[in-house]
Amino acid sequence: MIISNSMETLVAGSGVIRKLFEEGLQMAEEFGKENVYDFSLGNPASPVPEAVTKAIADVLKENPDSYVHGYMKNAGFDETRKAVADHLNKSFGMGYSAEDIIMTVGAAGAMNCVFRAVLNPGDEVVVFAPFFGEYNSYASNYGGKLVVIPAKTDDFDLNLEKLEENISVNTKCIIVNNPNNPSGRIYPKETIERLGEIIKKAENRIGHPIYVLCDEPYRELAYDGVEVPYIPSIIENSIYIYSYSKTLSLPGERIGYLALSKKAEGYDKLIGALVVANRCLGYVNAPSLFQLVIGRCQDVGVDLEFYDKNRKLLYEKLTDLGFEVIKPEGAFYLLVKSPFEDESRFVELGKKQHIIMVSTKTFGCPGYVRIAYCVDYDMIKRSLPAFERLAKDSREVLP
Amino acid sequence: MIISNSMETLVAGSGVIRKLFEEGLQMAEEFGKENVYDFSLGNPASPVPEAVTKAIADVLKENPDSYVHGYMKNAGFDETRKAVADHLNKSFGMGYSAEDIIMTVGAAGAMNCVFRAVLNPGDEVVVFAPFFGEYNSYASNYGGKLVVIPAKTDDFDLNLEKLEENISVNTKCIIVNNPNNPSGRIYPKETIERLGEIIKKAENRIGHPIYVLCDEPYRELAYDGVEVPYIPSIIENSIYIYSYSKTLSLPGERIGYLALSKKAEGYDKLIGALVVANRCLGYVNAPSLFQLVIGRCQDVGVDLEFYDKNRKLLYEKLTDLGFEVIKPEGAFYLLVKSPFEDESRFVELGKKQHIIMVSTKTFGCPGYVRIAYCVDYDMIKRSLPAFERLAKDSREVLP
Repeated sequence: MIISNSMETLVAGSGVIRKLFEEGLQMAEEFGKENVYDFSLGNPASPVPEAVTKAIADVLKENPDSYVHGYMKNAGFDETRKAVADHLNKSFGMGYSAEDIIMTVGAAGAMNCVFRAVLNPGDEVVVFAPFFGEYNSYASNYGGKLVVIPAKTDDFDLNLEKLEENISVNTKCIIVNNPNNPSGRIYPKETIERLGEIIKKAENRIGHPIYVLCDEPYRELAYDGVEVPYIPSIIENSIYIYSYSKTLSLPGERIGYLALSKKAEGYDKLIGALVVANRCLGYVNAPSLFQLVIGRCQDVGVDLEFYDKNRKLLYEKLTDLGFEVIKPEGAFYLLVKSPFEDESRFVELGKKQHIIMVSTKTFGCPGYVRIAYCVDYDMIKRSLPAFERLAKDSREVLP
Repeated sequence: MIISNSMETLVAGSGVIRKLFEEGLQMAEEFGKENVYDFSLGNPASPVPEAVTKAIADVLKENPDSYVHGYMKNAGFDETRKAVADHLNKSFGMGYSAEDIIMTVGAAGAMNCVFRAVLNPGDEVVVFAPFFGEYNSYASNYGGKLVVIPAKTDDFDLNLEKLEENISVNTKCIIVNNPNNPSGRIYPKETIERLGEIIKKAENRIGHPIYVLCDEPYRELAYDGVEVPYIPSIIENSIYIYSYSKTLSLPGERIGYLALSKKAEGYDKLIGALVVANRCLGYVNAPSLFQLVIGRCQDVGVDLEFYDKNRKLLYEKLTDLGFEVIKPEGAFYLLVKSPFEDESRFVELGKKQHIIMVSTKTFGCPGYVRIAYCVDYDMIKRSLPAFERLAKDSREVLP
């Protein structure tokens, strides 16, 4: 009777990654920070770009405090929303105007706004495994349910074969996270086009729109020149969701946005509801100073090389050690197939070597571990002997 | 089928104050900013204290970017939580430790965390009119329902006579907003002690705790030395909620906290659920830079004189003009009894004089208008002739 039923479920099942992160902090205290190899959290180690630091100073210097720290429209500062719209239009040939953009408390805030706006209790949200486990919490906040499409583990592309049978009259949204956390896969344009065709057919069948939530905080983290298709230019009923957490290394500041094209079905009703959701979920508005900062940083890119050299080093080393590794095309995560059927054994063996990796069970795709390589290159170098010992231990433990 | 049923209701009923605010911006464009007297929004005009501006600069200078802008525990930075706990202990003789404090996205974020943590669909939250209309949205986000106790308009104290009959087995929380928005009333210690007795009796009857949500963003805005009792020191099952929006003039930055004493029933379960709620509602954590800033500003006070002179000028002038005005003891709102039964007529008459006031219908207490006097003194002085004309018009329109 103290906490709600759905919260009992969340508390019991959630926070696995966060728990590991806190376990890592404890191990660091015990064994020394330099002897613990924490690959648990997507906390970007790439420095905040200088242009961002400069923008913070400039915004504070050039504007009155009452503007920088005061209330604005719930959807955000007009100047920021215009800068975002212009950037999306220039980058992807879209026709957004400022009123189509809502500044949000990160991508997680944006997803909650969407679910609050569209989900009735019992409504369904389709996700493709592997997927970020917190989607489950976001939907359950409003009585929604995730419908999980199993991973296509041969290539980790979207498992479109299974999509149509998983769309029901209760389906309101489909989440596509591109580049994908945790697989590092980038879904190509052809996949998105096929996705769009299947959805259109399903919408005709069920009689209402299905919104594709394009969760793209890793968009700029695409290696080897692989293109990340812009889904709203292919599927009209899309809600584009972006966060500056990863690319500008600002995860603590909680700044992101959602964009809804006027071509989306039900635009007027939906955009109004999204603004109300942004207010009434208690965000009220995205943090004001950082709205103004990112408004000036639309062209600031991520330091791709910072993560790419980590990716290469880990991929090569782990492959050499005999592990089966999914080579990431984007984001900053790497999947390693567990040598044991139960990957929690592999996670535990890792911990003995002070390597903290995350089981992919909460990602709806057991049998793997996720390594977040958004860390210092030096830590990866220091960790390599530990991985060698882990490989040896794994072989010895195998039946 | 585009948006959810409960969102349809919210969109239809909500945002009255925000609509007036945007109407005010439009009038300012038409008639000139200096000729519009916008008393709609609680957007504090008192300058951001110098100590805050200095703290922003210092935090940025003295810490690595990865610390200032990075992830921390979902409940917030340890150093900030400790500073808050120390401040509460020193101010109110409490025994909080850092782990009892959760940094939140303002007070609105904190209230959403509480409701997410404790409300099952159909559960009830008791509020005393007049009350901030957004409470209704916050509860409805999770299927909760407000139970409104009518205002005691003789003195605007809590209407305790009606409390017991409004507590059912579904009651999970009671909100007490002290000093009160919109009445400006400060509920005295004796009232809170009686409240505590009634709740204890009811808890025994219904068999589970009822948490008092102490919503206190206006705590420091208490005039003439009136004491604001610290409810958690009187009622153990209290959740204290605070925001820096009003007192440090930082409403856009979305920074506040909740505090739960270990003496509260179900502490362990509840504090864990509140941290999960803070993460899974998409806040993830309160904005990081401003956590560190307010950690250093615990002893920074509000410029009380800034608002007190507004309060005195308006109260005296409106009383002189023959209006019935509730003299505020705290916060920065002033209630004026509408000369007409339907106060929307009074609001419209005000608009003709470019005075923007808010009907108290959404506060559950029709028949009054709210004047937010958190504005520049000069604007109030300029508005006085308009109030004179409004008084004249009101007399002429009266039947």
